[in-house]
Amino acid sequence: MSDQPVAPVPPFEPPYYTVVFTSLRTEPDHGHDDGYDGTADLMDELVTTVPGFLAVESARTPGGLGITVGYFRDADAIKQWRGRAEHRTAQRRGREEWYEKYAVHIAKVERSYGFERGA
Amino acid sequence: MSDQPVAPVPPFEPPYYTVVFTSLRTEPDHGHDDGYDGTADLMDELVTTVPGFLAVESARTPGGLGITVGYFRDADAIKQWRGRAEHRTAQRRGREEWYEKYAVHIAKVERSYGFERGA
Repeated sequence: MSDQPVAPVPPFEPPYYTVVFTSLRTEPDHGHDDGYDGTADLMDELVTTVPGFLAVESARTPGGLGITVGYFRDADAIKQWRGRAEHRTAQRRGREEWYEKYAVHIAKVERSYGFERGA
Repeated sequence: MSDQPVAPVPPFEPPYYTVVFTSLRTEPDHGHDDGYDGTADLMDELVTTVPGFLAVESARTPGGLGITVGYFRDADAIKQWRGRAEHRTAQRRGREEWYEKYAVHIAKVERSYGFERGA
């Protein structure tokens, strides 16, 4: 997630899909690299190669809740991303090692708008 | 946002709506309370009184992107929340003072699932 741009991605032209992934991490074992950061960076790269991918952005309050939002042109793009071999491996490790708890909400965007200072 | 629970809210039974609000704050004027935190806390309280409100959760990477996700039973609940007088005032101050840039994505959740360790 280190390479994510800071600014929010602009709204796209509806309809498109969004995947909201909210998570609480397991307690980190300090001094031990559990592979989470490397895998997160890899997933952020891989997802951009999915046909229909639009954007992804993440925020995590230190020690708290993480929210990652992915934007895709259609439901099929999400299905493809879910089924990618590397992503499936990451999902399994997430359940086994990295997450205390998570929730996923898959939704069709009906309306979107944005604001930019001075625009 | 200080009173937000740390754990992600569980998935609800579809269909429901989600509002994804992503933002970049203006540069804070240190030592000067610009009213942002107080208003954010007030909005987090007020939104819970909207009929059809389900939950809200936020994460903000320090100095970076903020993501707030609201969950509502239907589109009418979102419309009511948008139109609330206090919320309209907060929206205006957001554009005038608090945000460099933001985007809003309003979407109908078609599918949701969750994971909890040991559950």
